[in-house]
Amino acid sequence: MSDELTRAQAIMVSKEHPRYASLILRNKLVEGYQRGIASAHGLIAHGRGEAFDYLLGEQTSESACNATKVACAHLLTARCAVLSVNGNTATLVPDEIAELQEIIGIAVEINLFHPSAQRTKRIADHLRDHGVANVLTGFDFVKLAHIASDRANVDKKGIFKADVVFAPLEDGDRAQVLTELGKTVMTVDLNPLSRTAVTSTVTIVDEVTRALKNLVSLADHVGSDGQRKELNLLKASFDNQENLKASYAIMLKQLRDLSR
Amino acid sequence: MSDELTRAQAIMVSKEHPRYASLILRNKLVEGYQRGIASAHGLIAHGRGEAFDYLLGEQTSESACNATKVACAHLLTARCAVLSVNGNTATLVPDEIAELQEIIGIAVEINLFHPSAQRTKRIADHLRDHGVANVLTGFDFVKLAHIASDRANVDKKGIFKADVVFAPLEDGDRAQVLTELGKTVMTVDLNPLSRTAVTSTVTIVDEVTRALKNLVSLADHVGSDGQRKELNLLKASFDNQENLKASYAIMLKQLRDLSR
Repeated sequence: MSDELTRAQAIMVSKEHPRYASLILRNKLVEGYQRGIASAHGLIAHGRGEAFDYLLGEQTSESACNATKVACAHLLTARCAVLSVNGNTATLVPDEIAELQEIIGIAVEINLFHPSAQRTKRIADHLRDHGVANVLTGFDFVKLAHIASDRANVDKKGIFKADVVFAPLEDGDRAQVLTELGKTVMTVDLNPLSRTAVTSTVTIVDEVTRALKNLVSLADHVGSDGQRKELNLLKASFDNQENLKASYAIMLKQLRDLSR
Repeated sequence: MSDELTRAQAIMVSKEHPRYASLILRNKLVEGYQRGIASAHGLIAHGRGEAFDYLLGEQTSESACNATKVACAHLLTARCAVLSVNGNTATLVPDEIAELQEIIGIAVEINLFHPSAQRTKRIADHLRDHGVANVLTGFDFVKLAHIASDRANVDKKGIFKADVVFAPLEDGDRAQVLTELGKTVMTVDLNPLSRTAVTSTVTIVDEVTRALKNLVSLADHVGSDGQRKELNLLKASFDNQENLKASYAIMLKQLRDLSR
């Protein structure tokens, strides 16, 4: 079916389209699917995110920016921080993952909702091609209780031993279980009402490429300009539920404005 | 990648899941994609719909029900009604398309945003397998002006000569152009804020399988129980913009309730 997809991409990338940036991302994800990195369900999940991003005005909010700062503080002060990567994240932000690893030294673990050995290998190769080192693939895993999906299998050297788990585009079940295990769970989720958003310790309600770019930029500058103290203060006073409310408010306002 | 998808389906179909019905639909669409009927972009579009349906409470609203009645009245009184079918519609409601054709005698035209001869043929075969007769495939087409995509190509015996075009899951560009050509354009769109929703003559803000089942049921009973007069009255007094406002209101309320 490559004929359809090639044609689709040729049509969609028109700079005049009111939602150009969103369409570019969409094409990137379709390409990731064609390459066997993203899953079919991942495409649908991306669509859900698009709808919520539309209601957020397709831009990073102040509350998302705050959550990103707090996430950065957690990463910088973690005993062992692990970034959990799925197909969509690997497709959309491989360079940012490599940069974050270089700056913070975060471990990277591939953990898929719809796993297969082939897809895990393709994702690992893709991440390595983009400069990510030491990709954990759950070869030596522990099975967490109370998670129905294969995301229960976590790497012994990764999520299992981490105190801070950064899992963009997470699923609700696991976010809750990891939090109950006493881990600090941080996520990127465009739906502020999702179980993932509500049960995580820190939820960045933002589109994942915007969020990761901001996080890399923050991590890159924090040492040099003394922002570290400010980030730690933010971390101490951060209330995830309160912060999520700001996203609801934006969506409500946007819906009201658009419906006029 | 069939190993991943088979596994995905086995995981997802758990009756305990709070969003079981939505997951069943999602699997059906992934299967449609695997069979080359739906497109990769169609999967993403479905995900967008899911998010809006979530905000609509995943049920048919009174305003959606009204729009469906008005759509039924238009179909029953049309000189030439054509149902425009894309990959997602063909995947999700082939039986309902066949039933609607049998009851109303509506023409069925395959019209794709991301067309290919192979996919059109697969969709035509799929529709015929489900009992749809005389599938128009745009073999003898006219190109409508002011539409950037290949959806501009409409069948001479179908959309081109129709006075009433029923195009579920339509794109905004074409809805507008068809309306400007003086046609009655009816759509099913879960996003009440989309260009399609706003520019169509009748917009059913509902999930496409629920909407088509309701439409078939209405069309099937309208002759026998004298509802025809009521439908025509509804048609005469229908205001699409006013009706859309009811959907915005539901979404606003749902967001407010969920965010508490």
